[in-house]
Amino acid sequence: MDLVRPKVAIIGAGAVGGYYGARLVQSGLDVHFLVRSDYDVVRERGLVIRSLDGDFTLAPSRLNIYKDVREMPKVDLVIVALKATDNALYQPLITPLLHEATTILTLQNGLGNEQQLADLFGPSRIVGGLAFVCINRVAPGEISHLDHGAIGVGEFASRSMQRITDIAKLFERANVKCRAVENLMHARWEKLVWNTPFNGLGALLDATTDRLIATPQLTSVVEALMTEVIAIAKAHGIELSADCAARQIDKTRGVGAYRTSTHLDRQAGRPMEIDAIFTRPLRAAQERNVPVPRLELLEFGLQLLNSAALIKPHN
Amino acid sequence: MDLVRPKVAIIGAGAVGGYYGARLVQSGLDVHFLVRSDYDVVRERGLVIRSLDGDFTLAPSRLNIYKDVREMPKVDLVIVALKATDNALYQPLITPLLHEATTILTLQNGLGNEQQLADLFGPSRIVGGLAFVCINRVAPGEISHLDHGAIGVGEFASRSMQRITDIAKLFERANVKCRAVENLMHARWEKLVWNTPFNGLGALLDATTDRLIATPQLTSVVEALMTEVIAIAKAHGIELSADCAARQIDKTRGVGAYRTSTHLDRQAGRPMEIDAIFTRPLRAAQERNVPVPRLELLEFGLQLLNSAALIKPHN
Repeated sequence: MDLVRPKVAIIGAGAVGGYYGARLVQSGLDVHFLVRSDYDVVRERGLVIRSLDGDFTLAPSRLNIYKDVREMPKVDLVIVALKATDNALYQPLITPLLHEATTILTLQNGLGNEQQLADLFGPSRIVGGLAFVCINRVAPGEISHLDHGAIGVGEFASRSMQRITDIAKLFERANVKCRAVENLMHARWEKLVWNTPFNGLGALLDATTDRLIATPQLTSVVEALMTEVIAIAKAHGIELSADCAARQIDKTRGVGAYRTSTHLDRQAGRPMEIDAIFTRPLRAAQERNVPVPRLELLEFGLQLLNSAALIKPHN
Repeated sequence: MDLVRPKVAIIGAGAVGGYYGARLVQSGLDVHFLVRSDYDVVRERGLVIRSLDGDFTLAPSRLNIYKDVREMPKVDLVIVALKATDNALYQPLITPLLHEATTILTLQNGLGNEQQLADLFGPSRIVGGLAFVCINRVAPGEISHLDHGAIGVGEFASRSMQRITDIAKLFERANVKCRAVENLMHARWEKLVWNTPFNGLGALLDATTDRLIATPQLTSVVEALMTEVIAIAKAHGIELSADCAARQIDKTRGVGAYRTSTHLDRQAGRPMEIDAIFTRPLRAAQERNVPVPRLELLEFGLQLLNSAALIKPHN
């Protein structure tokens, strides 16, 4: 396994896969993209990145793109950037890319993705990643990077820091801030503290992030929801810092009128990532008898919206 | 005061005012309608009632309608069927109708309407009414009565049953089931138990009543919200029966795909009755330190939707 100059595959070229993949290409890495819905556009026009750190375009000649994973080479590092609603595709999409020592890094949101990957491919391959980024796919092959951008990477099953430090360096060389985290689950739950209100309420209420914290009264409800997530984490042995909710709200103030991916999915009538971001944390609460009435109501609302989007309401 | 054959004014000729007013006209009472937005249509075509108990139309010649309350006669009974968002109009719309012994009956939803009326006109005039009815104004001057229809009436400040028994008889003679209730606040809270999930979640999620109870999992969230309302009532000395939530859900099953007034308001981008139905019960919980996290989140969502409807989102 070579994680200094690895061969990389990106599975899923939406906002996250497209953006970080493009950064890795820019840094000179050998990157291979599985591009499904946007293949024809990307093949013709390349990848267009509008970034607060400077816009850039990767011409088609600089991109290795594939419609079919079976045409892709085996790689050292698979970066999974699928929507979590597509996790049933892990096996067919990832298996062909693996040699004996391939590392699989998931940049997906929510709980349980690493476990699902470990069940399929063995825990030692799996690294969890967290993308702290405000980013939207605004059109096929066109990604708008609006704010933040750092990544955290952590081992799923190992306590060694070596591999994740190597991966962090890859990203750092590609102008992406990246830190190796000692405790992946701590970082996961910390990110869920943000995703739960902002992805959840944003989608439920069709409200950009700024509107959810527009008044102290609204902010207190966002914070109460965050507090429930912190309590679930605690019941599972993860102690988040006391000011974690307040800090995340503060960081969000600078972002402006942002729509999360879940909000965009809702607006477009696409399936939302409810299971990974909402249902699994809710189950985690129920397992330990943590009262999470707000999360419960939120998950209820999203399920209902999602089923309306999927099966069409009889309205 | 004559409550055997009283002169009646109906303030607000939406679904509730139009329907019950039309029934009273049918029974031969002397009824005077204040009709604001629909005046021209009603003047031309009358009131069209499509009812599960039989359709009927009241021709313009059978209706006393007014655009301006100052042209209306003084009456024995004022029936208030305004949207609670218009309660600031109580004084200008009701004052001209009052003689010394006029009774004011509010059929509005939510908490606090009787108190507001009592503050303006004195508590002895005030009777609270509860309309247990599935009814929609489907077009100007056209009302669709879909299910149920009974009314409960209770004294706000008096313990006498005489007046409310007289009012109940008026409605009974007009083919409206009506019972005089001994404890108005008990009936109010019992109705809120229904309104909170069905008006609230229905509007929030743009979901008809049947969809909110389509699965046992969804139903359990509706019931949990009802349980919060029952707890607020209890903290204020109102003991609702233990099976109150389950019974209301059962009654709702027969109704089919019903849209509450709050849901219709949301769909039409009109102000929703948030204050009376949601915010005041929430404050009532906070006064007695009753934890109501679901109601809190629901009220939050509705406030946000409402402000989006009123001030236009920057989406």
